[in-house]
Amino acid sequence: MEDVRILDAITTPRDLKALTDEELAILAQEIREEIIAVTATNGGHVASSLGAVESILAVHSLIDTPEDHLVFDVGHQAYAHKLLTGRREAFETLRQYKGLSGFTKPSESIYDVHCSGHASDSLSIATGLAKARRLKGTDEKIVAFIGDAALSGGMAFEALNYMGTEQLPICIILNDNEMAISRNVGALMRHLGSLRASSSYRTARDEFQERLESNGPLGSAFYHFGKSLKESVKQFVLPHTMIFEQLGIVCTAPIDGHDIPTLKETLSVVLSMDAPVLVHVVTRKGAGYEPAERDPEHFHGVGPYDIATGKPKAKPSAVPSYTAVFGQALEQAAEADERVVAITAAMEGGTGLKPFAQKFPDRFVDVGIAEEQAVAMAAGLAAAGMKPVVAIYSTFMQRAIDQLIIDCALPDFNVVFALDRAGIVGEDGATHHGVFDLVYTRMVPHLRVLAPSDEAELARALPTALALGGPVAIRYPRGTAQGVEIPSDPELLPLGKSRVLREGTDGALLGFGSLVHPALEAAELLAAQGLELRVVDMRWVKPLDDDALVAAAQTPLVVTLEDGVIAGGAGEGVAGRMSELGLEVPQLLLGIPDRFVAHGKPALLYEELGLDGPGIAQAVLQKLQRS
Amino acid sequence: MEDVRILDAITTPRDLKALTDEELAILAQEIREEIIAVTATNGGHVASSLGAVESILAVHSLIDTPEDHLVFDVGHQAYAHKLLTGRREAFETLRQYKGLSGFTKPSESIYDVHCSGHASDSLSIATGLAKARRLKGTDEKIVAFIGDAALSGGMAFEALNYMGTEQLPICIILNDNEMAISRNVGALMRHLGSLRASSSYRTARDEFQERLESNGPLGSAFYHFGKSLKESVKQFVLPHTMIFEQLGIVCTAPIDGHDIPTLKETLSVVLSMDAPVLVHVVTRKGAGYEPAERDPEHFHGVGPYDIATGKPKAKPSAVPSYTAVFGQALEQAAEADERVVAITAAMEGGTGLKPFAQKFPDRFVDVGIAEEQAVAMAAGLAAAGMKPVVAIYSTFMQRAIDQLIIDCALPDFNVVFALDRAGIVGEDGATHHGVFDLVYTRMVPHLRVLAPSDEAELARALPTALALGGPVAIRYPRGTAQGVEIPSDPELLPLGKSRVLREGTDGALLGFGSLVHPALEAAELLAAQGLELRVVDMRWVKPLDDDALVAAAQTPLVVTLEDGVIAGGAGEGVAGRMSELGLEVPQLLLGIPDRFVAHGKPALLYEELGLDGPGIAQAVLQKLQRS
Repeated sequence: MEDVRILDAITTPRDLKALTDEELAILAQEIREEIIAVTATNGGHVASSLGAVESILAVHSLIDTPEDHLVFDVGHQAYAHKLLTGRREAFETLRQYKGLSGFTKPSESIYDVHCSGHASDSLSIATGLAKARRLKGTDEKIVAFIGDAALSGGMAFEALNYMGTEQLPICIILNDNEMAISRNVGALMRHLGSLRASSSYRTARDEFQERLESNGPLGSAFYHFGKSLKESVKQFVLPHTMIFEQLGIVCTAPIDGHDIPTLKETLSVVLSMDAPVLVHVVTRKGAGYEPAERDPEHFHGVGPYDIATGKPKAKPSAVPSYTAVFGQALEQAAEADERVVAITAAMEGGTGLKPFAQKFPDRFVDVGIAEEQAVAMAAGLAAAGMKPVVAIYSTFMQRAIDQLIIDCALPDFNVVFALDRAGIVGEDGATHHGVFDLVYTRMVPHLRVLAPSDEAELARALPTALALGGPVAIRYPRGTAQGVEIPSDPELLPLGKSRVLREGTDGALLGFGSLVHPALEAAELLAAQGLELRVVDMRWVKPLDDDALVAAAQTPLVVTLEDGVIAGGAGEGVAGRMSELGLEVPQLLLGIPDRFVAHGKPALLYEELGLDGPGIAQAVLQKLQRS
Repeated sequence: MEDVRILDAITTPRDLKALTDEELAILAQEIREEIIAVTATNGGHVASSLGAVESILAVHSLIDTPEDHLVFDVGHQAYAHKLLTGRREAFETLRQYKGLSGFTKPSESIYDVHCSGHASDSLSIATGLAKARRLKGTDEKIVAFIGDAALSGGMAFEALNYMGTEQLPICIILNDNEMAISRNVGALMRHLGSLRASSSYRTARDEFQERLESNGPLGSAFYHFGKSLKESVKQFVLPHTMIFEQLGIVCTAPIDGHDIPTLKETLSVVLSMDAPVLVHVVTRKGAGYEPAERDPEHFHGVGPYDIATGKPKAKPSAVPSYTAVFGQALEQAAEADERVVAITAAMEGGTGLKPFAQKFPDRFVDVGIAEEQAVAMAAGLAAAGMKPVVAIYSTFMQRAIDQLIIDCALPDFNVVFALDRAGIVGEDGATHHGVFDLVYTRMVPHLRVLAPSDEAELARALPTALALGGPVAIRYPRGTAQGVEIPSDPELLPLGKSRVLREGTDGALLGFGSLVHPALEAAELLAAQGLELRVVDMRWVKPLDDDALVAAAQTPLVVTLEDGVIAGGAGEGVAGRMSELGLEVPQLLLGIPDRFVAHGKPALLYEELGLDGPGIAQAVLQKLQRS
């Protein structure tokens, strides 16, 4: 007979209201076990999910979603929320192809408010919900989680500024786990640190009373909840130094984010308030799972692992990742040129810069989750004669497109953009695929764009970009590289020149980046059917190689292949350029169609999209038969 | 004989060092007269320029640019800087075609650090300069201006957070003129207001001494400049409540930004410090020119005006602007549907929302210069069942592309984007042209994109977008509309259907938005040469009208016309779609080429780009002759 679990009795979050604090604590343990069991098989965001279990339980036990709103930031900490909102049975499909998303997603559940995935947006979403509540004259509760690291993102500040002015009724749960994805960055972090160190309860009552009686800017905020709160002041301290206060946001003292009675007591008071209040919850990443507590950075996002040891199940590959190859190439460049500076936005590990940071600590800059600052700071460094290399995931670079255009490209500054995780990234899904970068880089004047097709090409691309001068973007995929030899002294790539990988006259496959190898595979398959197609590694998305287009146009079909959206992408660039050159030839544009792509293993997704070798071969065959 | 001016003797800013405070004050007056004289003829940013004169003089009299760095934010306040840095004679060409830019621009002068134009980036640029200084081991001064309004932009906060952590040596001049472009927004503004109201000098010395002796987080910052500063403490007060302090940034008390001796005294102390310091300078927008002081919002950016009265020289047009037509259409929509909410980012007037704000104050949201918040808040409003319309200039929407994709489009939320100032905007130049929106909207799945060709179409587009549901962008140009009648009860536009404006079989002109009318003009010119071209108002950039493409392909030449960059734009979209449809026909893609376009009257720029009627006709003729 199986164990009877409380978790199995939870059909909707309202069921939590019937549970005692002790039962909630047991439930928290059950949720932990479930999260560990599923992520050990599927991989996922373990550390932050485990850290947020009690906070999520406490909130859900006090509010009535979906009428009330619970907004997550980034959303990878929401696994407990998923387990409590009708997704317990589906949870084993977490992050799998056609399974549950790793983030909140309205199309998956009415309990999910928005598509979380990119940090720092929860407070802005909450301001919209709160403004709507005010306009509708209703009284639903609005609760928004945000992590300490996400507070370094400028848009969180914009939202705080707005909600403070309007005194919007929002309960912010600051999930302060003393760790960003890589490490604490920023003066704000230090500020939170000093708060954590203070004796929380020391003169709470006195200070609070004084505030209540004063006519300070917070007077009105307190006025509304006067009496009920007075009974609970022991929960509160209002440090004089809180930034939030000055923005008109009431703050609680730091409380233990793993103590359900404390969480419930504090939240029940705060939820009765009609103003913006920040509940400062201190949690441990990976709480309750020793391997994750020991190495929370590793357990931020992991593949399948052994539960007993926490060790990855997958054997380390002999082939390096593109990320690692980039990191190494950048080290080499920095050795050769002391003007080279590396910039990351809270992704020291994710962008392969850990070794660089150790070797060149002075020339390593981590600005926190603040892509706008990363890119505009790079412009400043370039203006002063340095050669900054900004390493950002393709999807997060979407946060700094204006700074790319105005601050870097317009003045033609020497800034290199290393766009990691370009193309389909896999299990993180729609919010994380790097499928727009070919478009948002192509449109920018002065910017040159490289799409290396393997790790040797990436090793050549970086020194090429640095030698070229001006703004240059290099975009490369997530995961293991092709396994080709990496040149120790890589030659520079000629500007705007492609290379032919296979000859053929029945058509030309013009591949960009990660689709060059599937193109070769497709050519093999087509050769078996008696069709010989030329395969070209275009290398440069911009400028395009006119000679390659002219040569391709001498075959009966030009096929463009890219791991990004077709609308505005490299294929359309080829189409437009061929028109300009007066080349009229049938063209097949292969790439990501005009829809968002969900999550799953990249191989499955590329197969679904028809962008693997067989899919490409089939599409080419069909097109040749039609024309 | 002409008056002898001090201004005429200033060859480089170093010449200022020889001047007494009295002479600097006279010079300030001369600069004001010059700014007024030139902007009265050319138009320009009058109010902020006049407000910043003394601050700029004081800084330049104390530092040695270009070795030292002076960074402007937005940059339209830098006219005095231009007059002092070798551009006095060229100043009469300000904002004119092939003349001086209205903003700082490195290609124009070695005294300009970066291409300013978009608010809130100066502090990030300064962090890059300061980091470079530290790496190079040099000691140049780094001074960055920022306005109070620009502080509401998240990236300014990101930069403050970073420089506070790293204690980078930056002198920030907070130009606090108590007025954003439209009006004060945000809790931070209120915070600054309370500082302004405080008695600045009251217990300055005591508090300051106490700080110096304490071991607080600012200890190290003060340590470096201990003695010299002690002599000047009367300049300083360190209010307990400053947000900046908590980020590790020393702040001065508010000082009079029009009093040169005070400015110099304070700045000379601050410039000797090796840490981030914020000098809080209180200025009056339009200072010294009565009409501008009286109505600084109008004088933020103006056309030519009469100096004596401040009245515009141009007679008000009988034809409304697109902006006004949009504002009216939105009012109408809001009357019909109480879920409609208008959102602006500090551009209440610029986006035509003043009447709306008066009529529906509750449903009008101004988030300040905070586009990310504007767009993500719209997502929250939509999640709660409202119908937000975000009115943002095309160029400033570049700041919130990620929020457009992830927060609005991915969950398919009902958010309408009204992108004003699309296409060539004229005198503001490269930083302000709205030439990328066709690309960054086209690439986003779920998003439909309308490009109305005249004001009647705009009046139809808004209710169409609201009725459609899901995310929809409407983009329309700056300036006076076409003068056609605006339907009082506009019919809804069928999704993805174009309209034929002129028949012809010698070619097809597929026009998008503002280029539809030049296309008609070109067709007239070509008809005079015996060529009859079809002219199509495509209406929808996305989805494209396949029927229009099929029909166009039956002519010998398809010409696409758009007022945006060709790379990734609508023309390439047509090229790609025609390939998909198996339509092979010569295509001519007309639009903005792959370079940044400078400033000048739109008509001159469109002529230069070959996008006026005659230019289009000529390009078509050449292409027809070649094929």
